[in-house]
Formats: sequence, C-alpha cells, structure tokens
Amino acid sequence: MLLTPEQKSEIDNLRTEKRSTLRDVSTGVEEMLYTPIPVLDHGFVRVIDYMGTDSAIVQAARVSYGKGTKKVNEDAGLINYLLRHRHTTPFEMCEIKFHIKLPIFIARQWIRHRTANINEYSGRYSIMDKEFYIPSPEHLASQSRLNHQGRGDILEGEEAHRVLQLLKQDATQAYGHYEEMLNMDANENILDEGKSGLARELARMNLSLNFYTQWYWKVDLHNLLHFLSLRADSHAQYEIRVYAEAMLSVLKAWVPITYAAFMDYRVGGTSLSAKGLTIVKKLISGEQVSQEQSGMSKGEWRELMTVLGRNI
Amino acid sequence: MLLTPEQKSEIDNLRTEKRSTLRDVSTGVEEMLYTPIPVLDHGFVRVIDYMGTDSAIVQAARVSYGKGTKKVNEDAGLINYLLRHRHTTPFEMCEIKFHIKLPIFIARQWIRHRTANINEYSGRYSIMDKEFYIPSPEHLASQSRLNHQGRGDILEGEEAHRVLQLLKQDATQAYGHYEEMLNMDANENILDEGKSGLARELARMNLSLNFYTQWYWKVDLHNLLHFLSLRADSHAQYEIRVYAEAMLSVLKAWVPITYAAFMDYRVGGTSLSAKGLTIVKKLISGEQVSQEQSGMSKGEWRELMTVLGRNI
Amino acid sequence: MLLTPEQKSEIDNLRTEKRSTLRDVSTGVEEMLYTPIPVLDHGFVRVIDYMGTDSAIVQAARVSYGKGTKKVNEDAGLINYLLRHRHTTPFEMCEIKFHIKLPIFIARQWIRHRTANINEYSGRYSIMDKEFYIPSPEHLASQSRLNHQGRGDILEGEEAHRVLQLLKQDATQAYGHYEEMLNMDANENILDEGKSGLARELARMNLSLNFYTQWYWKVDLHNLLHFLSLRADSHAQYEIRVYAEAMLSVLKAWVPITYAAFMDYRVGGTSLSAKGLTIVKKLISGEQVSQEQSGMSKGEWRELMTVLGRNI
Amino acid sequence: MLLTPEQKSEIDNLRTEKRSTLRDVSTGVEEMLYTPIPVLDHGFVRVIDYMGTDSAIVQAARVSYGKGTKKVNEDAGLINYLLRHRHTTPFEMCEIKFHIKLPIFIARQWIRHRTANINEYSGRYSIMDKEFYIPSPEHLASQSRLNHQGRGDILEGEEAHRVLQLLKQDATQAYGHYEEMLNMDANENILDEGKSGLARELARMNLSLNFYTQWYWKVDLHNLLHFLSLRADSHAQYEIRVYAEAMLSVLKAWVPITYAAFMDYRVGGTSLSAKGLTIVKKLISGEQVSQEQSGMSKGEWRELMTVLGRNI
Repeated sequence: MLLTPEQKSEIDNLRTEKRSTLRDVSTGVEEMLYTPIPVLDHGFVRVIDYMGTDSAIVQAARVSYGKGTKKVNEDAGLINYLLRHRHTTPFEMCEIKFHIKLPIFIARQWIRHRTANINEYSGRYSIMDKEFYIPSPEHLASQSRLNHQGRGDILEGEEAHRVLQLLKQDATQAYGHYEEMLNMDANENILDEGKSGLARELARMNLSLNFYTQWYWKVDLHNLLHFLSLRADSHAQYEIRVYAEAMLSVLKAWVPITYAAFMDYRVGGTSLSAKGLTIVKKLISGEQVSQEQSGMSKGEWRELMTVLGRNI
Repeated sequence: MLLTPEQKSEIDNLRTEKRSTLRDVSTGVEEMLYTPIPVLDHGFVRVIDYMGTDSAIVQAARVSYGKGTKKVNEDAGLINYLLRHRHTTPFEMCEIKFHIKLPIFIARQWIRHRTANINEYSGRYSIMDKEFYIPSPEHLASQSRLNHQGRGDILEGEEAHRVLQLLKQDATQAYGHYEEMLNMDANENILDEGKSGLARELARMNLSLNFYTQWYWKVDLHNLLHFLSLRADSHAQYEIRVYAEAMLSVLKAWVPITYAAFMDYRVGGTSLSAKGLTIVKKLISGEQVSQEQSGMSKGEWRELMTVLGRNI
Repeated sequence: MLLTPEQKSEIDNLRTEKRSTLRDVSTGVEEMLYTPIPVLDHGFVRVIDYMGTDSAIVQAARVSYGKGTKKVNEDAGLINYLLRHRHTTPFEMCEIKFHIKLPIFIARQWIRHRTANINEYSGRYSIMDKEFYIPSPEHLASQSRLNHQGRGDILEGEEAHRVLQLLKQDATQAYGHYEEMLNMDANENILDEGKSGLARELARMNLSLNFYTQWYWKVDLHNLLHFLSLRADSHAQYEIRVYAEAMLSVLKAWVPITYAAFMDYRVGGTSLSAKGLTIVKKLISGEQVSQEQSGMSKGEWRELMTVLGRNI
Repeated sequence: MLLTPEQKSEIDNLRTEKRSTLRDVSTGVEEMLYTPIPVLDHGFVRVIDYMGTDSAIVQAARVSYGKGTKKVNEDAGLINYLLRHRHTTPFEMCEIKFHIKLPIFIARQWIRHRTANINEYSGRYSIMDKEFYIPSPEHLASQSRLNHQGRGDILEGEEAHRVLQLLKQDATQAYGHYEEMLNMDANENILDEGKSGLARELARMNLSLNFYTQWYWKVDLHNLLHFLSLRADSHAQYEIRVYAEAMLSVLKAWVPITYAAFMDYRVGGTSLSAKGLTIVKKLISGEQVSQEQSGMSKGEWRELMTVLGRNI
C-alpha cells in the first residue's frame, strides 16, 4: 500500500484548505499539489510547494517592477531565446519542492546533484520502514556485453526466478534481523524487555540498498532542468529515469512554455563537436565521409551516425 | 522620486489580484508583497515572492506527509533546537525573492554571498538610470584611526561640504558624458543624428560606483540568515547594514518563530574560543585574569572584555 | 588486508618519484602523501594532492604579488584574526584531495556536505569488493534512552554476540548472492556459462549499507574546517568521527598555524546565545541564576551548564 | 608600467625557489608560474598555483590507488569520452589559482560565475591605485543596431576622439577628487594636516567602473571550462574575452589533452535543437527546407544557417 490511511487523510486535509494569496499561481501545479505520483513498486514523487511560473522567468529577465509579461507569444519567444543561448539565471527564479520516496541505491545517484536542498528521513533518529524495491520481471535486465555501464537483454526463466527470490529473501531477512538487533519493531514496540537494543544509527547498516528512504528535495528550475536532461535520458539507469519522467509531467503542468522549450532544445536536441559539425557540413553538401577520414574514434562515429539516423 | 507613476501603478495592480492557492501562506509577508521599503536616498527592498513559513521548517525536519506541525510551542521548541545545534537543512526549505535597488559599490559587497540566485539589470543591454547615492551628512564618516577597515568621527563644516559637493559634481558630470558618449538620453532619444554612439557595454564604464543598479535576488532562509548575521552586524558597512535591517523587518513578518530564535542565537549571541571559555570559567569562580596571563592578543582580549561588558 | 600487494606497490612507486616544482610546498603533508591512514576495520584516508600552505592564506588575504608572508608570528596573528572574525575566503585558497574508503552508511552522511568534489567508485560499472564493516565490541552501543539520535551503554554478553553474528552472516550471505546474481565473482570470472548475469547496476542493490565504497574527495580548507567542526564533534556518529580525527592529523601536518587556530576557536570553543551571554554576565558578577529565571528550556540550560563546567 | 620594480623582484624571487615534491607536476604550467600575462592596457592574468594534470582526471575517473594512467592515447580516449558525455566530476579534480587584474565593470561580469573562490583587493581597507582602462581606438565600438547587447562599427574621427578624451578626463578627475576626499595620496601621505579625511569605504564610490581592481581567483577545471566556453565565445564582451583567451593559453600548457578535447567538443562545437536536428537530417537527405516550414523563429533559423555555413 502506497500510503497509510493516516497519511492519506493528512494529504486530503491539505487539499481542502484554500487560501488567498497575492503571489503568482500555477493552476497546473495547484491541481497536483500534495498528491503522490506513484513510481516503482513503493516510491512516489509529490509536489509540496512551488515558487513562480513561466511569468517569473520573464519578469526576472526584465528585472521588472510589475508582472513583466507581455503577450504570451512574446514571452515564449523570450524563454526560447534564454534557453537556447544558455542564459540560465532567469530560470533560477522559479523553485519547486518535492517529497520523494525512493530506493537507497537511487538516492545515492540522485544526491550527486549538489545544487539542491535536502532533508532526508533519518535512520539515526527513526526506525526505517519495511519497504524494499523488487524490480518487475520486465526490468530484470542482464549486464550489457557492449557497454560496461548498461543493461542488455531481459533475464528469463529460471535465472530470473532465482534473482527475484534472492532479492526478496535477503531483504526480508535483513529487516527481520534489523528489528531483532533494535529489539523493537517498526511501531516502536519493545520485543524483549531483557535486551537493550542496538543503537539505530548502527542497526540500519544491516539493511540493503534496495530499501526505500524518503526526502524533501527543493531545487530551482534551472537545476531541475539540468537534473532532468541527465536523468530522463536513455543512458540513465531505469530506476532513476522513472522518477525523472514523473517530474517531467510536473514540469509540463507547472511551466508549460519552459517545458516545450526544454523538450526542443535539450531532450530532443544534440551536441555536435567541431569534428561532428565538419562531417555534417560535408554530408549536406553531398560528400561521402568515413569513420577513418573523420578523425573520430569508432565509438564517437557510431554515436554521431545514430544521432543523424544513418546506417552505421 | 522612488517610483515612477507607471511603476507605482504596476505594483498597485499586482496588489489587487488575489488568487486562490493550496500552498502554505504567510499573512505577514502577504501584506508587504511587492511594496518597496525605502533604503538610502534612492534604494529599496521589496518582496516579490516567497515559499514556506515557519511550518515548512518543521514539516521538512520531520519529512512529513501532512503539515508536520504540532502545537505552536512545540514548533518553536524544535526551531530553537535546530538553530542552536546548527541543523541548517530544514531552514533551506523556505525561499524568498527580493527586488533590490542599491548602489554599485554595495552590490559588489553583496554578491560575495554566492549561494543565491541573481538577475541584475544589464548595462550592456539597457541605459542606466541617472540615480546615484549621496550620503546624508550624518553618515559622512572619517576614516577610523584605530581600525583600517572602519569609520571614525563624522566630518563637519567645510570638509563635509566639500566632500558632498565633489561627489555630486563628479557623478552628475559622469552621467552627462555617459549620455553624450551614447549619443542618447535615458529615454532612448538620439541626441545628434550625425553620431553613431558608443556601445552601451563600453559607455557604462564612465559611471561611478555610487550609481544605483537593481537586481532580483532569491535566497533560501538558511543563507538569508547567514547573510543577515554578517551584514546586520555592527562591523558591516553602514550602507549595506541598512539593507540588512530592512530585510530583518521582512524576516520578522515572514517567519516570526525563526526570527526570534535568530535574534537570540545569532544576532544577540557570541562565540567563545577555548581560551575565552577558560577565562569565563575563571571569572565565574571569582578568579582574576589579566590579558598577559590569558594567552590572548591585546585585540582579542579587548573584544572579549567588550562582549562581557567589562572595563578594559 | 588493507591493501593488495599490487596497490601497495603502486603507492610505493608514487612515493619514490621526486619532482621539482616552483609551487608552495608543505613538508608535513609531503611525508604523508599517498600513504593510507587506517580507519575502522577496512577503511582508510590518504592524501592524494594538496594546494597551498598557511602562507597561501596570508598571501590571498593580502592579494599579494609575492609570498605575502612576513614574520611567522605576524602570519599567525593574521590567521587567528581571520578565523576569529569569520573572514572565510582566504581559507578557500588552500585545497586538498583525499582518497577515502568508508562504509556506505557513512558515505551517505558524508555526502550531505555539498561544497566538495567527488568521484566515487561505480557499482554500475565495476564489481563491488567483498568488504563490510563490523563494529568492534567496544563500539557496539545501545540506543540512548535520553537522546533519540545517540548512543547509550555498550551491549554485552549474549546480546552483543548475537548482533555481531547477525551482521556478519547477513553481509556474507548478501555478497554471496550478489556474486550469484552477477554470475561472476569479484575477479570477474564468469561462474556459469549458461547464465547471462544480472546487470551490475541492479545486483548491487542486494548489498547492505555496511559494505565499503571508496571515493576521491577534494575540498577547500574552509569547507574542510566546517566538515571537521561538525564531524569531529562528540555529537557526531563514532564511525564518521574517526575519519574526521584522521583528517585532523593531516590538517596539523599540512597547515599547523590554521590547525592551532581551529582548535582554539572552533573545536575547543562554544557559542553563547543572547540569553546565555546574559546568564554568564550575571554569574561573573556573582548573581545566582536558575533555569526558571533564565528563559531557557531545560535542555538548553543543561547544555549551557555543561559547557561552563557547573553542576546541574 | 605593468609592475613596480618591487613587484617584479618579488615575482623573480618566487621563480628561483625550486623545491622537491611528490605531487603530480605540469611542466607546462611550471614555466608560466607567477609571471603575468598582460591583458588590456593595465591588466594581467598570472598563475599562482595549480593542482593536478591530465593524469589526475584519469586517476579520479578510475578511483585509482596509483597513477591511474595507462598509455597516453588511452588516457586521451578516456578524457574525450568523459567530456563528450558530460561526465564532469573527474574534471573537478584539478584546480588552478590565478591572480587577475581587471577593470571593475569586467569584474562585475566575471563574479557572476559563483563556483569559484575569490579574494579581492579591499577598497574599504586600502587605497585604490590610479589605474583605469581606456579602450584602444580599434576597440571603440558603436552600439549594434541589430543586437541590443552587442557592438557595431568602430567609432572614428571626431566622435572617437571625443569619447577617449571624456573617459580619460573623467577618470583622472575622479581619482584626483578621491585623493582629496581621503586627504591622502596613493602612497598614504597625508595631504592636509587640518583635515580628517573621508572613510575609504565611502571615498571609493567616486571612482568610475573602468578603474582596475585585482583578485585571487581559484577554480576547478570543470568550472574553468564552463567559464571559458561562455567568455571565450564571440558573443562575450571583448574586454572579458581577452582574459578568457589568456587563460586558454594557460589551459593548453597545463592540461593539453583536456584542452584539445575542449576545443573540439565545446569551443568548435555547437548544439542542435530537436527542430534543428530534423532540418539537418532533411538537408543531408537532399530535401529543401525553408524558415517558414522549419517551425523556427527567424532569429533561430539565421543562427542555424550561420552554424551550418549556408547562405541565409
């Protein structure tokens, strides 16, 4: 179950309390506020708060006394221009705060993005929940034979069965022993009056990296776009990409003009090196180019041809 | 004049548009939103947007599903505890955005605080306004004879008169020549059809450091407190301290519990070194201590005695 | 074993290659360079590179064309002054790079310090080593009954025995299954030709949080001091404090003047709130003060009395 | 004169003191160490210290116990790969420290790059030098008529003459009055015993933005590359671009493999949006595309055609 009845009721309460404000409001995000978007088997992303809309970008770029916006198409033109020319500071003028529940091994990737604010649930202070990630069978990928850092075919049959069995069994056992070492269960009931119970900050080390943790994560729009451009990418690990995709849906509701520009200039776009640009110019003018002539390594050549949609 | 009629009308418009939101609302800041607080002769601070209230700190510290707050006095206890023990991350969960107009030499001090987002009015793109800072006579301080980085007595009589005259005359002349070099006035009227006009990005170099600039400045609450603890301090230059004081009044309206804790633990508090702590313990137990015995330099001893309110 | 023979030989090689440089050199750190300082049962800290010495702080504070240093006692006076008055930027002019091996649950605390550069060993790309942390019996602390986030008495007898047994057994089993899922052992030999092997980025999730990871961690001196002031503190978890203590020994060898100032102003010092300062002044003048009159909470009062070395 | 005899002698002294180190050494930078590279009429860039070489990038990417480098061409392949795929953290493992003298209006652009460490010469504490920037006639550009933020043709004849005269005259006068207000000259001789002298922190506001300041600026290699990609670009203001170009020559001496990759992937490369990529693919396959069909604005279309070297 994603939420306890108590948690659900707390969220429902928050969604009933309408207030008056003079601030900029994004009706798109207001509709999503507080409600969890499910991700993986027990995780979620939910928006807790936000500051600004597309207008705030325009307003800051113009250091305006008022709204700063003109016509919608002029605003879109300016936002496109800013994103295209990497004028990043106006995008820093919007801020969003998420509550995210995610497996620890994904939290460890996530936190490498340093320009964000974080408050994580503390396993020194509190007892961790009994929730761990088990991949669904269609995401049980084998190690890629081409790419040291990637996935190959999906495991099948006996091997897949065995992997799922091991993951479940080890996590279950680890949690049982965690409670035993604490001498306490998840509801903070003492199990055995005769024992002291290991310190929480020590007992937690017995849990495996697929256990879920949760945190509040607050970030400005520029850094969110940077995060999404790396983590919504096909090279990102599946288990973090699904979080990025959930956040893309938030982005679309929150700042639709920025979202459209981002999809055009970042997600759907590409970078060309000096060598790559030379090759593109030759191809346009009808010349033939081979990898050997290009000055590129085989890997780089293959990447370029893939981007250009050409047979390799 | 602080605002043009057009600017005033833009602000008035913003203050009439009430909207509905499900977000946390600070009624204290809502009353101040958009309205400039005057600072120095032409400057101001005004709040453009904010995220969170005291409750958001508590909510994040508890990684809560709902409001996260309990009774007001429990919330205050937690906020006091967090600030006292330098648990800074929950304070990063609140954010505020200001529009600030300030002299360039103060902007250069201000921007040393790197953990904030900034959009500044661009003198490459736009023509700078004819507004420069002239100290009021009671702030026309002489160089301190004790402290290389400080102010001494107030200048008086002929010397004061001459300083004010020079500051006004040079700034006025610099602006006149700025317009002449641009071949354009502040309203972008061309002055002489026969001339090209120097590029704006070059002409601006003729303006002096007391000309006003303006920027949007967005910062989280933890970094705002750090800024205020340094810049609302008596050692800060007067011309930045008045901005810090205007922002303290915003802080009090926005997050009153945090404001009270901040005044107690930071603004009114002090740090003791190991040597200082030893001296304090001796003094409490009735021992006499002299600078020579203390292991402290004369300067450090003087600072400690001042903090303890003792004759030196 | 802390190092493989191959690793030991690589380090020995690095320590034989003396080179000539015009840069500032710290003879204290040169003696430690590359050599691991053991921490916990399998961890270490070793210095890989450094920039600057105490002189670099003085040189930067004076924005000097040459060395910038004067007499040693003048340099010490300046460094003391800078640290006391929180002029932090000159300390940012020194930089140090460590290679650190540490348990994952400690790495997760450590990485909350965001103003550092990190390269971590990748479990997506490489196979994790079979090394996990088991506390020594004298650090097998129970949960504190007073402090939700702390340790109480040391576990003894049967309970201690059982905890150590569980930790070892679960980690050993987790690693065995990790290898089985990978279909590969730590030397990258394939175990069973008939199986594909789970992707490394997935299999790693079965490992527990006491497994060791390693990273390069580069930080400037100001941020290192901030890290050490929090993590060498008695409130820090023992397992991170021992790393901080190893780094304190590096600090002493690297920048001895800064080290002495840091021990005086930060490690051995304390902060007083406005209320605390009022109480200290009363105590010095011989007045009696009680918790009830002080305006402090019981917890805060207890902390202050402890700092002042008084009976509570 | 770029350096006083005393400054020159201090630098010469530093260049004679060879020391022994076990650290990684870049012979290319050692040759440049401490020596100023002249920029503009009175400015310079000089390297004060550095950490790491191309090898340090490879070593960190491999989290290595030893040098981490293999053959030179394998190292180059890895560095190319890292830069192409925006794996930026290994580049953060190198650090460089510059002493830079630059006009204040350029310092104000520069400092927008926040991820660097800075110590600036203090006009609160010290008297500013009488050195200001006057453009050479060939850089006295007019305001662009196409681009609000750019330069057009070079001013000529009487207009150019007048601009240079005004800039020199106003700066000279401002400095004269600065000394008069201080009641002190640049050598700290008191001018008139009967006067107190205005506080330095106030008097400095009379100086114009073309006066030179100086600072120590320390940055990691990743952030240096980011700075250079923006500031060595043809859209950057000329007066900052010449500093970036001086630093590019340092980069080439310091980390030649990274420099080559940077020139290929960043400086000589380009970005394509999703729309741009579609157009490129069409052009390669021989289709005609027009701006109207492209979905691009006129500005964006013009930019793309320029990049592809096509007539617009």
